[in-house]
Amino acid sequence: MDSITEPTLLLDEQICKNNIHRMAQKARDHGLQFKPHMKTHQSAEIGQWLREAGTEAITVSSLAMAQYFAKHGWTDITIAFPCNIRQAESINRLAEQVELTLLINSTTTARALQQKLTTPVEAYIEIDTGSQRTGLRPSQQSLITELIRELQDSSLLHWKGFYSHPGHSYNTRSEQEIQHVHQSTISQCQDLRDQLEPTFGAFEICIGDTPCCTKGNNFDAVDAISPGNFVFYDLMQHQIGSCTISDIAVAMACPVVDRYPERLELAIHGGAIHFSKEKLSSGNHTHFGMVASAGNSGWELADADTFLKRLSQEHGIVQCSPSTFDSYSIGDLLTILPVHSCLTANLMSSYRSRSAGKQMSQMA
Amino acid sequence: MDSITEPTLLLDEQICKNNIHRMAQKARDHGLQFKPHMKTHQSAEIGQWLREAGTEAITVSSLAMAQYFAKHGWTDITIAFPCNIRQAESINRLAEQVELTLLINSTTTARALQQKLTTPVEAYIEIDTGSQRTGLRPSQQSLITELIRELQDSSLLHWKGFYSHPGHSYNTRSEQEIQHVHQSTISQCQDLRDQLEPTFGAFEICIGDTPCCTKGNNFDAVDAISPGNFVFYDLMQHQIGSCTISDIAVAMACPVVDRYPERLELAIHGGAIHFSKEKLSSGNHTHFGMVASAGNSGWELADADTFLKRLSQEHGIVQCSPSTFDSYSIGDLLTILPVHSCLTANLMSSYRSRSAGKQMSQMA
Repeated sequence: MDSITEPTLLLDEQICKNNIHRMAQKARDHGLQFKPHMKTHQSAEIGQWLREAGTEAITVSSLAMAQYFAKHGWTDITIAFPCNIRQAESINRLAEQVELTLLINSTTTARALQQKLTTPVEAYIEIDTGSQRTGLRPSQQSLITELIRELQDSSLLHWKGFYSHPGHSYNTRSEQEIQHVHQSTISQCQDLRDQLEPTFGAFEICIGDTPCCTKGNNFDAVDAISPGNFVFYDLMQHQIGSCTISDIAVAMACPVVDRYPERLELAIHGGAIHFSKEKLSSGNHTHFGMVASAGNSGWELADADTFLKRLSQEHGIVQCSPSTFDSYSIGDLLTILPVHSCLTANLMSSYRSRSAGKQMSQMA
Repeated sequence: MDSITEPTLLLDEQICKNNIHRMAQKARDHGLQFKPHMKTHQSAEIGQWLREAGTEAITVSSLAMAQYFAKHGWTDITIAFPCNIRQAESINRLAEQVELTLLINSTTTARALQQKLTTPVEAYIEIDTGSQRTGLRPSQQSLITELIRELQDSSLLHWKGFYSHPGHSYNTRSEQEIQHVHQSTISQCQDLRDQLEPTFGAFEICIGDTPCCTKGNNFDAVDAISPGNFVFYDLMQHQIGSCTISDIAVAMACPVVDRYPERLELAIHGGAIHFSKEKLSSGNHTHFGMVASAGNSGWELADADTFLKRLSQEHGIVQCSPSTFDSYSIGDLLTILPVHSCLTANLMSSYRSRSAGKQMSQMA
């Protein structure tokens, strides 16, 4: 830690590998294909840990991310984002190298791709099981049927099933609420099978969000899972109920640059361009991260009254309990658990292994 | 625009140059040194436009940014962030190349630097004129006096005056409120002069925030200004009252990837890793950006009911008025003005000149 001079994203390799092995084992136990989402870590090296845990197919959120992981030897890649037809040329180049699956949610997109593609690709239709972000609702039977027929008529698009990200699980705040979202997703998937398989034959269904994949027990009607955040978890997942604090695999190390005894506040180098402005309400305050210290098994929260209160571009202001305030001096490093590890990791672009001290990079 | 396939930060060169020339002229008119903050654009090329407008000294928010601009020929650089003593070694190397000014806010930091530095540096003491972020409050007379003496006794730290970022101007929402913050800052600066110059002789004062530097008229008691955001402005500055919509120099171009007629929502490629999660309350909604179209002089807002409603990592959901919804198809580009251009520019890492079509890079 002595060599750290600026905001640095620490990675506890062992916690991360434990998270990976637990989820990979769960997929095996339920007979599910494990297609982890790489958007959280964006790192070839962490990808390698997933490979060592038996992963053969991956999920990404952009064509650029698919290109990066293709370069690092992955050959079965799903871009879990509504296909952007402006990227048809790059899709063609990538589809020549790997088995590429796209989300195709409209006949407009399907027809544009049929015009612009030169290489065949696989297609999922995205189903909106309640997040109201993207995809068709299961009740939109005629649109779904029309789209399946459009894809089946296409010489370049091979329809293989449905994809759903039940992102409304991020609004849950207890295991019971997670289970409710999960059961509703599973039951919507089962309904799709019951309604469509008599006409269209067997198809695949892949679902993926960290709360449901972590806490769900019933994966009937589903063939594959694609959670992403679970490799690191974070304070938001902890508040949702997906993980314990000791499951969180990343933390920011930030230099203390100033102390304000009258406000019980520490100023750190670590701002919105390091943490992101994702915030969390907890008790009677809103915070951008919580101060932690190294414990026997992972990080432990300092105390409930010590949190990252304000962020500007490079500044962080940490509100402290009196005892925590007293224990930090100018020039010390403060360790802070992030609210949303995906956004923090995206901003930081690299990790420093907590045990080995070495740097691990992300896609450029 | 036809060649844009993914989220792209458009820069209107002419608006940006107009913003630069207006602020540089204002500094000259008030006899102020112009030390613009480079944290908003982080670009050597935009730095060059500032140089062409007569800028000789610059302000940055990190040592890394100082190193980048030093490499691009800047020789008078202030790091407007409380000095991080863990970076002493890199400070030494940089101070050998340029005239470097640091913010030194405590005797702890001053003493640590006196131990660790090998090259002399200039020092400002940061004054907290009301933002309650970092710096000493003007009322902390004995701490200020003690710190000045510590710096004057140091062989390596040359005290030259005070720096203040009246960031509480970001809470204002009218020109009158901006003027109130500005007048209070100027009057606190005058008090510092009246109290300290009889003992310590003449010193410099530099202040810098975009709302006050844009709207303030009285700069008595101040020698230099260091605003940053003014090169681009953004929707937050517009809401504060610092600029008009047509002064905003950057906008995101995002591909439309899906349409939801029943919700009047468009899905775009453009999420939290492009815009940042900085949001703004406006009327009865909160948004992450507003849809705009190209007008005769800069961008014009589409309508008050069309805004970026939700962001996840790569997804943006745009709530539309019926007529705006109808005017966009899958595959079109949507242009969105950012809430906070500094954070959006930091995430995007490069610009595409709107007129020339060429790419302009930022520090890596």
